[in-house]
Amino acid sequence: MKASEIRELLKWVTENVISFGGGMPDPSSFPVKEIIEITRDVLSTKAERALQYGTTGGILELREELIRFMNKEGIKIDKPENIIITVGSQEALDIIGRLFINPGDYIITESPTYLAALQAFRIYGPRIIGIPMDNEGIKIDALEDTIRKIIDNGTKPKFIYVVPTGQNPTGITMSMERRKALLNIASRYDLLIIEDDPYGYIYFGDDHPPARLKAMDSEDRVIYLSTFSKIAAPGLRLGWVAASSEVIRWFELAKQSIDLHTSTLNQYIAVELLRRGIIERNIPRIKEIYRSKRDLMLQALSEYMPDGVTWTRPSAGMFIWLTTPEKIDTGEMLGVAVKKYGVAYVPGKSFYPSEDRHNDMRLNFTYPTPQQIFEGIKRLALTIREYLSQ
Amino acid sequence: MKASEIRELLKWVTENVISFGGGMPDPSSFPVKEIIEITRDVLSTKAERALQYGTTGGILELREELIRFMNKEGIKIDKPENIIITVGSQEALDIIGRLFINPGDYIITESPTYLAALQAFRIYGPRIIGIPMDNEGIKIDALEDTIRKIIDNGTKPKFIYVVPTGQNPTGITMSMERRKALLNIASRYDLLIIEDDPYGYIYFGDDHPPARLKAMDSEDRVIYLSTFSKIAAPGLRLGWVAASSEVIRWFELAKQSIDLHTSTLNQYIAVELLRRGIIERNIPRIKEIYRSKRDLMLQALSEYMPDGVTWTRPSAGMFIWLTTPEKIDTGEMLGVAVKKYGVAYVPGKSFYPSEDRHNDMRLNFTYPTPQQIFEGIKRLALTIREYLSQ
Repeated sequence: MKASEIRELLKWVTENVISFGGGMPDPSSFPVKEIIEITRDVLSTKAERALQYGTTGGILELREELIRFMNKEGIKIDKPENIIITVGSQEALDIIGRLFINPGDYIITESPTYLAALQAFRIYGPRIIGIPMDNEGIKIDALEDTIRKIIDNGTKPKFIYVVPTGQNPTGITMSMERRKALLNIASRYDLLIIEDDPYGYIYFGDDHPPARLKAMDSEDRVIYLSTFSKIAAPGLRLGWVAASSEVIRWFELAKQSIDLHTSTLNQYIAVELLRRGIIERNIPRIKEIYRSKRDLMLQALSEYMPDGVTWTRPSAGMFIWLTTPEKIDTGEMLGVAVKKYGVAYVPGKSFYPSEDRHNDMRLNFTYPTPQQIFEGIKRLALTIREYLSQ
Repeated sequence: MKASEIRELLKWVTENVISFGGGMPDPSSFPVKEIIEITRDVLSTKAERALQYGTTGGILELREELIRFMNKEGIKIDKPENIIITVGSQEALDIIGRLFINPGDYIITESPTYLAALQAFRIYGPRIIGIPMDNEGIKIDALEDTIRKIIDNGTKPKFIYVVPTGQNPTGITMSMERRKALLNIASRYDLLIIEDDPYGYIYFGDDHPPARLKAMDSEDRVIYLSTFSKIAAPGLRLGWVAASSEVIRWFELAKQSIDLHTSTLNQYIAVELLRRGIIERNIPRIKEIYRSKRDLMLQALSEYMPDGVTWTRPSAGMFIWLTTPEKIDTGEMLGVAVKKYGVAYVPGKSFYPSEDRHNDMRLNFTYPTPQQIFEGIKRLALTIREYLSQ
């Protein structure tokens, strides 16, 4: 498995190595004091429910709070029956694979795309076609060409998987024009869209974030995924899916045999994080932390990187995508980066469904400290310079 | 899906209906105050880890505490690498299906057996052969006959799934003799055993509970499953698997793409529940609650049930298995039981892999109050009498 190779490499990462390899939020953004208070309150008033088995779909109060939370962002969800609570978004990705993919089926993703989504889908044996991106997101012409070719083959892609805002791994946010075009294509060819939106609520660009696909989904063809991992804390393992009640019912049947339901206690904690406005008040703080760390990394990159190296300027998400000149294989370079220079990243290759590019890397800017960001980028630049001069 | 039919029926259950249908622990057994304290302590001292992403296998401290916990029960597990933390035992059952079952494979279970295990396995398309039980557990001769027949067919069962202590749904505890014979057969035919043990730690019989299969497993052929749902609280959604490090590694690879990892916060809560001796001190209390409720249900059953009705006398678990005369179809009777008499149960049919029996039912004695137990059994007896007199 590709991910385990990277894991092996990243095991070299000791205290002296600065890692841009992970995908973890800044722990200073966790609402710790509030979760302590909430847990006490929840367990003092409804322990007999919060510690008991619950329903597979998730507790009603949480689904109702999520409806309000999404409505504020323009996502119109009417009924709790349109929502299911999952063990992080990862579980939703696995269930999507289970529900929609039969071996040999075509599915479409951005290229590069979220590695753990590729892993989750691959279990079910699909043919994954990656569509190239530019700074506005997925390339619509290439997408339509691909869809046509698949249809000419006598079949149809099962879905189009996209991370429209602050994409993992590139940090790119799909433009409004592309979003409309994507929905239009999905409508014309009658296709499902999976909108994976972990970062939409913490968009930190200067402009207004473009509307969610789900907010413009008049034909119920978008399955929307999000998570508490970036707006509250990943350790709660809470995600949710919003879709037509029919799709949610399929999710429930699948989830029932996978794990019965998501932790009731954690769901009640999330209810109160929403109800008490803690998440709403926390979001500007998270945005500020992420924006300033991004700025710092961008600054360090322009300061230290040699000519010929390029990178994205994300307005959301947790990653910058860096591209070196063709002669460098970032997978091969990682060993030297870690062992000689003390800096780690994730090589870009495994984010491509076809693994056909070797000179990119993903850099996380949310977890390392400001000092680590500056020093780490310096080290990375030295590594790249060494390789370029060979 | 069978389970959903029962769910539909059980939706009729209103406040005026006494339900023996669920499988929930008595909420008065939850260590509420202690979980409040622990959450405060954990989040005050290590929130940056307890709320962050964790490793797929589970946090090291919890696996180490579980080693000590199991060792006290005679289960010798040496290393954290022999344990993985799951989202309840249900997730372990799903992963077992994913890892071991290809469509058409034979697997063997007790008959009747745990419904949610059947559901989890069935997703993967096996041929499930149920082996009849008596009061000592699975019938060894029938088991060996079945294994031989499968081998004569040129194949081999992928595993034998058993709930040896306080089985769900029958409440039967497998005798020591049968356990040894089962291990012996598994050894002779080189087969895996799945030992599902949610109830072993709260054995409330007068005698000493028989040793776990895993405690006698000298050949590393037992995959052992247990859960915090019955010794602490189901709402935490915490289970664990103990097996060879090779098997645990496969579990980790599967779980990584299913949900990354189990809630870190809940794992740290479990560490402290074990470390502070709270679970150990709580267990005698749970046993006492369960024993007295079982006694009450047994007393009510002998008082009210007509001749020809028989039932088990469990020393562990949460269920009594009741068998009516052949002329009654308990599935068909459920509607009348609920609507006319105000009492609910789970019809026995779906617990049989082959669904070839119609006159049993599962009765839960841990969740209803003492008053409900007495009144509910009275109502159930009236229902059965009406059906017998027709």
